[in-house]
Amino acid sequence: MNIDMIRAAEARLRGAVRETPLLTSPALDAIAGRRVLVKAECLQHTGSFKARGGWSAVSALPEADRRRGVIAYSSGNHAQGVARAAAAHGAPAVIVMPSDAPAVKIANTRALGAEVVLYERATEDRDAIGTAIAAARGLTLIRPFDDPLVIAGQGTTGLEIARQAAALGVTRAEVAVPCGGGGLSAGIALALEAEAPGFRLRTAEPEGFDDTARSLAAGRILRNTRLSGSLCDAIVTPEPGKLTFPILAGLAGPGLVVTEEEALRAMAMAFAHLRIVVEPGGAVALAAALYHSDDIEGDTVIAVCSGGNVDPAVFSRALSMLGDA
Amino acid sequence: MNIDMIRAAEARLRGAVRETPLLTSPALDAIAGRRVLVKAECLQHTGSFKARGGWSAVSALPEADRRRGVIAYSSGNHAQGVARAAAAHGAPAVIVMPSDAPAVKIANTRALGAEVVLYERATEDRDAIGTAIAAARGLTLIRPFDDPLVIAGQGTTGLEIARQAAALGVTRAEVAVPCGGGGLSAGIALALEAEAPGFRLRTAEPEGFDDTARSLAAGRILRNTRLSGSLCDAIVTPEPGKLTFPILAGLAGPGLVVTEEEALRAMAMAFAHLRIVVEPGGAVALAAALYHSDDIEGDTVIAVCSGGNVDPAVFSRALSMLGDA
Repeated sequence: MNIDMIRAAEARLRGAVRETPLLTSPALDAIAGRRVLVKAECLQHTGSFKARGGWSAVSALPEADRRRGVIAYSSGNHAQGVARAAAAHGAPAVIVMPSDAPAVKIANTRALGAEVVLYERATEDRDAIGTAIAAARGLTLIRPFDDPLVIAGQGTTGLEIARQAAALGVTRAEVAVPCGGGGLSAGIALALEAEAPGFRLRTAEPEGFDDTARSLAAGRILRNTRLSGSLCDAIVTPEPGKLTFPILAGLAGPGLVVTEEEALRAMAMAFAHLRIVVEPGGAVALAAALYHSDDIEGDTVIAVCSGGNVDPAVFSRALSMLGDA
Repeated sequence: MNIDMIRAAEARLRGAVRETPLLTSPALDAIAGRRVLVKAECLQHTGSFKARGGWSAVSALPEADRRRGVIAYSSGNHAQGVARAAAAHGAPAVIVMPSDAPAVKIANTRALGAEVVLYERATEDRDAIGTAIAAARGLTLIRPFDDPLVIAGQGTTGLEIARQAAALGVTRAEVAVPCGGGGLSAGIALALEAEAPGFRLRTAEPEGFDDTARSLAAGRILRNTRLSGSLCDAIVTPEPGKLTFPILAGLAGPGLVVTEEEALRAMAMAFAHLRIVVEPGGAVALAAALYHSDDIEGDTVIAVCSGGNVDPAVFSRALSMLGDA
């Protein structure tokens, strides 16, 4: 993995993904006690940054492989990113999804033309299922984070952050990023190392699923004890990735950890002050920026809101935290 | 009013307002039966296009007038736009708001440092109240739509639409715009006449408050019979403006009219497929694009989502239309 792979991915992604805006609000600055810049990846095609990695991987496949098709396993956002890229490249796509994924993500994945295979998150191994189907049908498996082409695609978010922050005159900042397997965090960390050396990456995770924070502190990969039951479904993975963790260990600061309630409150703040829809897992970095100020350094924090695919009932629960005002 | 005033406003607004994105979703295209481009002005500073008109008017004031201060009457979005511009220019601001405006708009206007004066929408005349306070305290009244500088500011939205659509290769389109007093519609119509002559402006209004549609059909200004009681509070005005109506009569196609339920469904679609927060009045153009296809011509419709300041209870009501999926 290196910055040249991210730059090459950006060239392949041109015209296929959006440069998402960097949003601000005086109300958020006041809560955080410092300037808050929000990278709104929930406005990306398919509603999350996963459209980048999916496109990066599918667009780099040899034509013959593409024609046979691709397979991915995903709680939903990677599914949609791969499905969209496959459809645009005329490649068949099979997506292996947990049965407890938000209904909206399963429906949207099917709407993108993919064949969806459901599995039980707590008892079945999605990697084994994906590998078996891929072998049987000659499909290329696109892993959600431990794939250099996927990491490179997610890293294009970091190239945009570096350019957009520079345009605002920001030269030093902490960059908080929702972290599951670490593809987005590792990609952004590499991009910032090359393009914005005054920025430091900070992973953000929900309490109880803080494998990356604990692994960064320990200096080796540690596993989560629970693998389901989080509102932040998009960023629940068993442990940091084999490719992503060494990158984060070298470049990231200590991991940030927030409660589910803080993630819901951050969703409510994004609704009221930025008018964007963020899903719980996508809101953990903003939650850290707003409610864990003491764990963050400097006068500017950049929070990536990584996705916005959330069931209405969960979103209404977040809104209930605002009361009538 | 002419295009040069809009271009001059754009120069004054540079760096002070956002170029909002033009969003797309295959799901929306499928519902509408044609390509749908959404101009997401809900992502503008203060959550609506009114930040443009407010900035345009305040930034053009002579220094002495600015120091005495400004006054505006508004259901909420113009209030915030003027309050933000006044605060940034060091000008005191008094805002006259209806007592039934969404609590979030009243709170946000106060948070921007303005003094808020409440009035009864059904029985009191806000123009008379505003004029009286302005005279007593030497303030400059910034009208919400019948002011050339305000129309010019809102028209900068049209300059952006013309450029962004051209970048996508769109040369013919209908442009649907939520219409209250007509400042945004008239400004965009003038901008498109100059910069995108293949585009036609279409006003969009809620049923029962369709003064502009009826006035366009009659060729003269007609009044609404009711002045309150709409969910689409942001775009309820007694009648089309004296400056805006002649512009629309010359440039706009027939007015589009949607039900409140269609506006709520459009909000739900924007939540699920664009991940943006739109208020009922701001969603009427998208509602027309999605649910009144037969009233629209051509293969591309551009819908302006003009604002996103909505109380959580109303937003949850819109989400309930999605069911569990």
